[in-house]
Amino acid sequence: MVTVTLLGTAATMPLPDRALTTALLSWEGHSLLFDCGEGTQAAAMRAGVGLSRLEAVCLTHYHGDHVFGLPGLLQTIACQGRTRPLLLAGPKGLENFWAVMRLLAGPLPYQVIPVDMPAEGLWFEGGATLTAVPTKHRVPSQGYCFQLPRAGRFDPDKARALGVPVRDWKKLQQGESLTVNGRTVAPGDVCGPARRGIKVVFSGDTAPCPALEEAARGADLLICDATYDTEELAPEAARYGHSTFRQTAALAARAQVRRLWLAHYSPRIEDPEAALPLAQAVFPAAECGFDGKAVTLRFTET
Amino acid sequence: MVTVTLLGTAATMPLPDRALTTALLSWEGHSLLFDCGEGTQAAAMRAGVGLSRLEAVCLTHYHGDHVFGLPGLLQTIACQGRTRPLLLAGPKGLENFWAVMRLLAGPLPYQVIPVDMPAEGLWFEGGATLTAVPTKHRVPSQGYCFQLPRAGRFDPDKARALGVPVRDWKKLQQGESLTVNGRTVAPGDVCGPARRGIKVVFSGDTAPCPALEEAARGADLLICDATYDTEELAPEAARYGHSTFRQTAALAARAQVRRLWLAHYSPRIEDPEAALPLAQAVFPAAECGFDGKAVTLRFTET
Repeated sequence: MVTVTLLGTAATMPLPDRALTTALLSWEGHSLLFDCGEGTQAAAMRAGVGLSRLEAVCLTHYHGDHVFGLPGLLQTIACQGRTRPLLLAGPKGLENFWAVMRLLAGPLPYQVIPVDMPAEGLWFEGGATLTAVPTKHRVPSQGYCFQLPRAGRFDPDKARALGVPVRDWKKLQQGESLTVNGRTVAPGDVCGPARRGIKVVFSGDTAPCPALEEAARGADLLICDATYDTEELAPEAARYGHSTFRQTAALAARAQVRRLWLAHYSPRIEDPEAALPLAQAVFPAAECGFDGKAVTLRFTET
Repeated sequence: MVTVTLLGTAATMPLPDRALTTALLSWEGHSLLFDCGEGTQAAAMRAGVGLSRLEAVCLTHYHGDHVFGLPGLLQTIACQGRTRPLLLAGPKGLENFWAVMRLLAGPLPYQVIPVDMPAEGLWFEGGATLTAVPTKHRVPSQGYCFQLPRAGRFDPDKARALGVPVRDWKKLQQGESLTVNGRTVAPGDVCGPARRGIKVVFSGDTAPCPALEEAARGADLLICDATYDTEELAPEAARYGHSTFRQTAALAARAQVRRLWLAHYSPRIEDPEAALPLAQAVFPAAECGFDGKAVTLRFTET
């Protein structure tokens, strides 16, 4: 089960009822924060989600509207008693960014560990993985793809036939191999093919690009840059490395995602819902993200 | 006429309905911002006050909860078209602080000018002055005292007797000297003694201290640290360089201020109003500050 809460949907500057675009993803007692604009800690409180179980803060790029909430958040979770390390992921330039940010944040009672994302991504408990997705903005940028895999169906008859004691079944279900009567039993010996897991993609700021489309393929949820509402602004979107409602919807349609939440609205967009038909014309399931919008995703394959 | 708007009243971290303690003071088309915690720009929007006419951002000290809103605010007023310089005042350490902060804020279309406050303060249009007030926190800190003076009553008979043309009366009223028929006429020749002006004091974080009390003497409004509600927490207040409700009220009573707004509430204080009687017991006019609270101060002497 994965819960995603959109903490903000603004681009450039916060508005009275629109915090800067940030999302919190939680699963099995762990969570990841995507971007951290000014006001993120307050937005999390308003949305009723805690930040004490953060594994990592995942920055898409280093523009102010995506990162100025970081020093305050780091100090607040320090006040809340955090002592275990926090990962800080980001695109090229992370070292320089953190060198400045750590001066502001000051001494903390836990370590912040900057990580250049390895190609295979980061692995978390429960088999969850997080990979970086190259995106197309006017500075180095990356989106993120979170996946929670699901093992194949467990076959008790096969396990019994191989002599696996019932107390060890769970280990095999969780992907561990065992030695039984001197013979190795692998998960594949007692489980069917892997079933559909859960995939969530957060784009950050980007023009439509093939890597994002590929990462989003079949995703349960894509949260994507939709900075501009009308197609008249497509040249501006291209110039600044952003997307229009329609472009984002078209990418979601091609990638056959299950849910699309538009986000990162230009301050000029007063009511995103008014422009939603522009997206739904090409991807009927498109939805407008809004501050505090949340969804709980469950495994769907039986 | 001076308008003061309290944009936040929180200490340490923002709460869902309590932004970090910051105040905006405006007079005759100019304004000053006292402190700039994370979320200040959004709080200003919620309070319905603009930041385009800022003359200076006045920091009381460099703890994160008082300054992390600065880079976002600087970028936002840049987006809004600011090109004229902005003064940045603060206590000892301003140069180092700004050296880091400017890296985060990036290139701006206007200059930010750090100013070590001179002893005579800063002078603004209309004769307004801003002086720093030494305060007592656990790091270098200062409060601020804003004063808008008021000239003495103008005596038209004296002006006529001295041969001053009516078109020049305003100059004398505004404090300018003139040459009339080869003789110097000074404001004092045609105006009575200076009348009561307007004084506003913003304490920042502080334990009660004589310099603050002296600066606040007779102030129209004192906005003051009241981090702790009950007197049981007085030792903690002393240890961390803060004040209790009662201590702040006692200082206001001794300084004979007209209005006292308590602010900078510890996150442990759920409802400041519930503890207000602790302050009113020693200073009946004490009021709890709250986000968006505003007052317009007018000259009171006729």
